[in-house]
Amino acid sequence: MSRRVAIIGTGHSKFGNRGDVNIAELAYESIRQALDEAGIEPREIDFAYVSNVGGWSSEPLPAVVALEYAGLTGIGTMRVEAACSSGSAAIKAAYDTIKSGEADIVLVLGVEKMNESPTPTVVEFIGRAGNYFWEFQNFGLTFPGYYALYATAYMARYGATEEDLCKVAVKNHYYASFNPKAQFPRKITLEQCMQSRYIAWPLKLFDCSPITDGSAAVILASEEVAKKVTDSPVWIAAIGTASGTSNLSRRSDFTHLEAARIAARMAYKKAGIDPENPVKQIDVAEVHDCFTIAEIMAYEDLGFAKPGEGYKLVREEQTYIGGVIPVNLSGGLKAKGHPLGATGVSMAVELAHQLLGKVERERQAPIKHGVALAHNIGGTGHYAYVTIYTLEKPREA
Amino acid sequence: MSRRVAIIGTGHSKFGNRGDVNIAELAYESIRQALDEAGIEPREIDFAYVSNVGGWSSEPLPAVVALEYAGLTGIGTMRVEAACSSGSAAIKAAYDTIKSGEADIVLVLGVEKMNESPTPTVVEFIGRAGNYFWEFQNFGLTFPGYYALYATAYMARYGATEEDLCKVAVKNHYYASFNPKAQFPRKITLEQCMQSRYIAWPLKLFDCSPITDGSAAVILASEEVAKKVTDSPVWIAAIGTASGTSNLSRRSDFTHLEAARIAARMAYKKAGIDPENPVKQIDVAEVHDCFTIAEIMAYEDLGFAKPGEGYKLVREEQTYIGGVIPVNLSGGLKAKGHPLGATGVSMAVELAHQLLGKVERERQAPIKHGVALAHNIGGTGHYAYVTIYTLEKPREA
Repeated sequence: MSRRVAIIGTGHSKFGNRGDVNIAELAYESIRQALDEAGIEPREIDFAYVSNVGGWSSEPLPAVVALEYAGLTGIGTMRVEAACSSGSAAIKAAYDTIKSGEADIVLVLGVEKMNESPTPTVVEFIGRAGNYFWEFQNFGLTFPGYYALYATAYMARYGATEEDLCKVAVKNHYYASFNPKAQFPRKITLEQCMQSRYIAWPLKLFDCSPITDGSAAVILASEEVAKKVTDSPVWIAAIGTASGTSNLSRRSDFTHLEAARIAARMAYKKAGIDPENPVKQIDVAEVHDCFTIAEIMAYEDLGFAKPGEGYKLVREEQTYIGGVIPVNLSGGLKAKGHPLGATGVSMAVELAHQLLGKVERERQAPIKHGVALAHNIGGTGHYAYVTIYTLEKPREA
Repeated sequence: MSRRVAIIGTGHSKFGNRGDVNIAELAYESIRQALDEAGIEPREIDFAYVSNVGGWSSEPLPAVVALEYAGLTGIGTMRVEAACSSGSAAIKAAYDTIKSGEADIVLVLGVEKMNESPTPTVVEFIGRAGNYFWEFQNFGLTFPGYYALYATAYMARYGATEEDLCKVAVKNHYYASFNPKAQFPRKITLEQCMQSRYIAWPLKLFDCSPITDGSAAVILASEEVAKKVTDSPVWIAAIGTASGTSNLSRRSDFTHLEAARIAARMAYKKAGIDPENPVKQIDVAEVHDCFTIAEIMAYEDLGFAKPGEGYKLVREEQTYIGGVIPVNLSGGLKAKGHPLGATGVSMAVELAHQLLGKVERERQAPIKHGVALAHNIGGTGHYAYVTIYTLEKPREA
């Protein structure tokens, strides 16, 4: 018999420049909410996975520091890193630990404090998440440059425009304006985006996700525990994972991320979702819009649109509520913010709230099927995690 | 039905100052051996956990880089960190993934390249594995200082001497002299150790483990796969995990590591080992001798000796082959070397070889019960992992 795994508690800090707290305090904001929501005590937790990329914080190994501050000393723990998909990686590890029977209740904490370092240092460090020896050292590529390569290739092949990219930012800022946890809870106009300065052509300031401090937490539990503590569990139905080449010169093209396609197919297969028409079964998605072009590629890699047609979903506003599939109603990495290690966990919190009808009215997706999808990328498709959350208990594996 | 998990392949690089290879090449030395030993192809691997602390290497996020070099692009992966116990944490994660049914064959790679940074930088970074904000920043404590606190407290309370500490180093160098993979494969005398310079009183140069580059790999598999590919699987019978306070001032005393005791009790309970007399059931152990005092505390935390009597095992040479329980026949962290992320995986490789009677004759433990134990500490008991390996298939959980 397979053991099913549910989210029984969620927590989420305000994202932004959080110089007001240290990393343990920032983590605790989410841990406390998650414990309260689950209605459990710290001593009931069996294990904790801590998602954190680090490199900019003076506390480089924060797992034990954060757990001690939250009264969780004693339980086993480890830090997990898969670049910007670290949060989803930690959820996968916790899911496996519960499903294996090694634990019944596991905390997944995502936390990142990026503003302790000056921005150029942060951007340089993130640049090493690609391939250091070849690309970073030889060509000085950092992430706006990497995603600009994808944007130019995509635009050249399919005819998408800079306006199409900016429309992703406009949508995500629109929904962020209703999300009080977002770093930038305010609308922007297409003109504002188009007139913002270039960071790496064709990507402008408003095409880029920001440097963010933040935390998010979920408490996962076995079916047996979930039944006891909540009448509204959100189930993890399936997780798909894959990696890409570290070296971009070994990629077959620059208009999609192969790892995301593999991870999506794996998740769809496990969850019983038709890969040819997933939008018929999925109510809402959070995708990895570290840059606006990444959201458009995500539509295609996930099968929401055919290859080369993702930008049309944006142009026709089909990823707003009421469209083919609403995407990034949290504001996305773009406007909610992108504290690397917290991002995947933040997606889980958002989708649990969406499925349970608990988000602000203006950004609540209609829930018909009870199925939500998180798409979380590390590097430029170096890591990909696709996670399916459901209201219905998943089928027996 | 619970799924049992076995080691089906092992690999281990030469430990030392490995300026001759980059981090992917260093990793590949172990991955290639493990694949060859298991007799499987890269495409048969479902997932990879990469243990690496980093912070001193120019490639800070090495998982995808190492996998690409080894021809493993495509599979899901994440990096795992639990300070110096990262390798055992990665084994725990992989064990859970297979036991859960999410994968059948998982690679665990531990790799660390510490000599890319100058030694003071490495020592400073490791110092942050304690508690940065309070201890490191305010008092400048680094790891020799931390363990010197334990050594002085232990010596004051129980009457152990500097000679007792040095006898740990003499034993471990003795066995390292027969291990061609060790960083220091040579014997030392008690006088050499006693005359070496103080690093942090009472710890001298020869009481300290070195700065090491190295890699180790194990391939884990489900029982079904293990049966097909090998007639000599080594099983993971149980894993115990725990954490301690990050802040040393919150520890109850400085003569033991509470996390290690908790982890040991958990592992013994799961494996059916009597915690009052574990040496009756365990043939051989690798323990975390980052400093000589740590090996003596390990004897007590694991129940090999009563509290306050661990040093007598050393004084009476009871942890040599032929004694009560042979410990660190690989040479230990002290003389085999301590490439942080690789250490826990290296322990698994060593113990698999011990159980199968495959190590050099002079350092082969007699195997009566088919049971081996790995004790792997992160920080100064911030993390503890105790893993039990067996020749017999573990009981159904």
